[in-house]
Amino acid sequence: MSDSFFHMGQETHAVPMTLFKNNRDRATKAIVEELLPGLKFQSGNLIVLLEGGKDKSFYNTDVDYVFRQESYFQYLFGVKEPGCYALLTIDVKTGEQKSVLFVPRLPEDYETWMGQLLKPDEFKNMYKVDEVHYEDDLSSYLERAAPKLILTLSGVNSDSGLTLQPPEFASKDKYETDCELLYPILSECRVIKSPEEIEVLRYVARVSSNAHIEVMKFIRPGHMEYQGESVFLHNAYSVGGCRHASYTCICGSGTNSSILHYGHAGAPNDRPIQDGDMCLFDMGANYCGYAADITCSFPANGKFTEDQKFIYNAVLDARNAVLESARDGVSWVDMHKLSGKVMLQRLKEGGMLKGDVDEMLAAGLSGIFQPHGLGHLLGLDVHDVGGYLPTEPRRPSEPWLSRLRFARILKAGMYVTVEPGCYFIKRLMDKALADPALAKFINVDVFNRFRGFGGVRIEDDVLITKNGTENFTFVPRTIQEIENTMGLNANN
Amino acid sequence: MSDSFFHMGQETHAVPMTLFKNNRDRATKAIVEELLPGLKFQSGNLIVLLEGGKDKSFYNTDVDYVFRQESYFQYLFGVKEPGCYALLTIDVKTGEQKSVLFVPRLPEDYETWMGQLLKPDEFKNMYKVDEVHYEDDLSSYLERAAPKLILTLSGVNSDSGLTLQPPEFASKDKYETDCELLYPILSECRVIKSPEEIEVLRYVARVSSNAHIEVMKFIRPGHMEYQGESVFLHNAYSVGGCRHASYTCICGSGTNSSILHYGHAGAPNDRPIQDGDMCLFDMGANYCGYAADITCSFPANGKFTEDQKFIYNAVLDARNAVLESARDGVSWVDMHKLSGKVMLQRLKEGGMLKGDVDEMLAAGLSGIFQPHGLGHLLGLDVHDVGGYLPTEPRRPSEPWLSRLRFARILKAGMYVTVEPGCYFIKRLMDKALADPALAKFINVDVFNRFRGFGGVRIEDDVLITKNGTENFTFVPRTIQEIENTMGLNANN
Repeated sequence: MSDSFFHMGQETHAVPMTLFKNNRDRATKAIVEELLPGLKFQSGNLIVLLEGGKDKSFYNTDVDYVFRQESYFQYLFGVKEPGCYALLTIDVKTGEQKSVLFVPRLPEDYETWMGQLLKPDEFKNMYKVDEVHYEDDLSSYLERAAPKLILTLSGVNSDSGLTLQPPEFASKDKYETDCELLYPILSECRVIKSPEEIEVLRYVARVSSNAHIEVMKFIRPGHMEYQGESVFLHNAYSVGGCRHASYTCICGSGTNSSILHYGHAGAPNDRPIQDGDMCLFDMGANYCGYAADITCSFPANGKFTEDQKFIYNAVLDARNAVLESARDGVSWVDMHKLSGKVMLQRLKEGGMLKGDVDEMLAAGLSGIFQPHGLGHLLGLDVHDVGGYLPTEPRRPSEPWLSRLRFARILKAGMYVTVEPGCYFIKRLMDKALADPALAKFINVDVFNRFRGFGGVRIEDDVLITKNGTENFTFVPRTIQEIENTMGLNANN
Repeated sequence: MSDSFFHMGQETHAVPMTLFKNNRDRATKAIVEELLPGLKFQSGNLIVLLEGGKDKSFYNTDVDYVFRQESYFQYLFGVKEPGCYALLTIDVKTGEQKSVLFVPRLPEDYETWMGQLLKPDEFKNMYKVDEVHYEDDLSSYLERAAPKLILTLSGVNSDSGLTLQPPEFASKDKYETDCELLYPILSECRVIKSPEEIEVLRYVARVSSNAHIEVMKFIRPGHMEYQGESVFLHNAYSVGGCRHASYTCICGSGTNSSILHYGHAGAPNDRPIQDGDMCLFDMGANYCGYAADITCSFPANGKFTEDQKFIYNAVLDARNAVLESARDGVSWVDMHKLSGKVMLQRLKEGGMLKGDVDEMLAAGLSGIFQPHGLGHLLGLDVHDVGGYLPTEPRRPSEPWLSRLRFARILKAGMYVTVEPGCYFIKRLMDKALADPALAKFINVDVFNRFRGFGGVRIEDDVLITKNGTENFTFVPRTIQEIENTMGLNANN
């Protein structure tokens, strides 16, 4: 890390530490505006106290997972070391804020194992916070600061259902604390991306796009699925400086391309790719905490069959419709419906479906082909926070909408995935055929021809703007572009 | 995974499920021999109950770490899925054993996300255990089995100091349980490798060796350290099918090569490699849970300077002396001393030290150059279990020996790293010069010339045999071999 930047050298993006300072300022402003009017006290200090991530060991062995910072802590402080605390003191009268980082006091002989142990002043210079102390000084710092209230962070992730626990710290019981007010405020801050955040997201989407292109050039029948994962991770790291993927790589071929979260430990991308397969590769790198989340679908042998063209173009048209319609002020639920409608329309035109498309949509038929939402917020987390905040529209109850990870009105500065998909999943196909309300729209012969086809997903990372969208994903998307790119795999 | 094998396809190693069956049989035999005589009951069942690893989420986000099985569970059952339990029932009278796996009962609609959900019979066929049930049947199974005693697993890792917690399970309080007897028995089983384990270890060492060679061909001044990490991981995965590294890659160049655990989040291999640097790259792949742990040291530009040759050969001679002397019946502490003595002898011959080598050794001077042990047990864990079991020699108290991760008499079938090193660490150099008992052996001018040199470590993965050692590491080791290999980097 260079002075005042997170930077992995060479052509990688230099992330200015002002990004995190601006995040702190934005969070402070939100806290001042939303909380101060309701406080019982009108002078003195309020403190926002966050606990950074800690090293996580691999069971009780002597090995740790490669550390990644907790996302809220990353958002406000951009600190790459484990075991820290940090706080913002806010003067309730003036709204003035000060940032203070607390770093672990490590034994001197750790230097042999970890390298030079930075002094507080060096951390201060590196992270551009106002003060740095050792973590064992937190108690005395709080005593001197004498805050009227300490806000800590706790809340439930609306995708995983998991709770972030509020920090434990010595002398906690000496202070009035609240662990609930902060979470929705910080989460909402994270939803609208700042210009500096947008540049990091643009960068990591470009790195991930280029790595996907390398994978498409590499893949051919006979390769193992995981070799695609390996090419992606190597390219993203070696060229883009991205040490982490944002999530487990999904590299499905053949019917595996219809398994939405394929690639997990029980199905670890370990199938040999066959001639005639569709491939669905969903992979995203991570840079300085910020995520990309991109899916490419393509034929293993580089040439689409007619059936593959049919399904691929149905999904591509759905994606194009959303990219042309999404903008500030538009409902995400409406975009999901639009995507579903276009896809059903195309499936009808290709002879798989029959009847009125609006009726199919209302009956939930699109949920048979695409049992997931159109997309999700994206940022420091791949399924980013802010989806179902208390002040926002609640999760829809209809089954084919209930998988949506948010149901908000889009705002400029939101960053989302647009990822329509069409999958042929045995269980859902059988379910549709067994349900007269759905089966009546289906031409059974055509439908059944696609058993074993797998699936297609096209996933882009897209910034919502005042007047439309800006797509940060640059990969071959049309059939012609894909076939051209895959024709370049001369080095295999 | 093919039927009865763990196999990542292509040329990767097919690990037979009999490996784990044999581990179970060996563990059962050890339990019968060591525990049964002391039991209060001489008929009925004893049950050994283990809890498999669970998915670990990345904080409260919607992302999990890529799952890796807990090592003791892997040792006995080789199961790649999270969330399992498994047990061995042992008939106390006959010593007969039965293996039973309990898998999570997942909701049917998980199939959309995870792919086909295997039935118990399919798991039984895959893992070659005697029975498979759903995890929610564990209680009723135990009730039917009516064990007189349940042994569970808990113990402290002698390297990390972390405790493996015994499993929680419903109806636990209905049974007599013991969580302490099992840990030393299973740990000792893991120390001596079986023929099938040896083949896996041989494979993962070869894959890791080849990946190291690719890194050496790739590296040149101007590259970033982490690009070496990326080349290694890619090669080990794409060619060797190794999805995981056994530990965080250490890729130090220049003075970073003297930081023993460089590469952690605070120092993430992010320095540009310079002309004239020594590089020390310590990286090992993992296959089916089994680890490699290999270090190569080489000049960034492919040509050793005279000073680099001097230090490198001192370490190489120490390593060679150990490889020639280690065998069944030899004390590991003696090997550490031998290594230190050879290194000091060479440093003296090169003019850095003066005086009697045995006196230097007794004064602890080798600990200034190599502040770590000669090596450690290696197996499913990179710092493998069994180092300081209650029945084995205790950790030596002398500072220059106390870093040893075990102090045992070597036995045929042990698998260890041999990793002498020579580092120029400012803090330790200053300490030596300030201590008359050490400084008297040092030619200060020569010694100080090496400030900033960094360090050299040569680490091999070695099987102890009746009459010697078998080295599973195949990388260029002599100066000539290294220079020849690095001369091949024509593709850069």
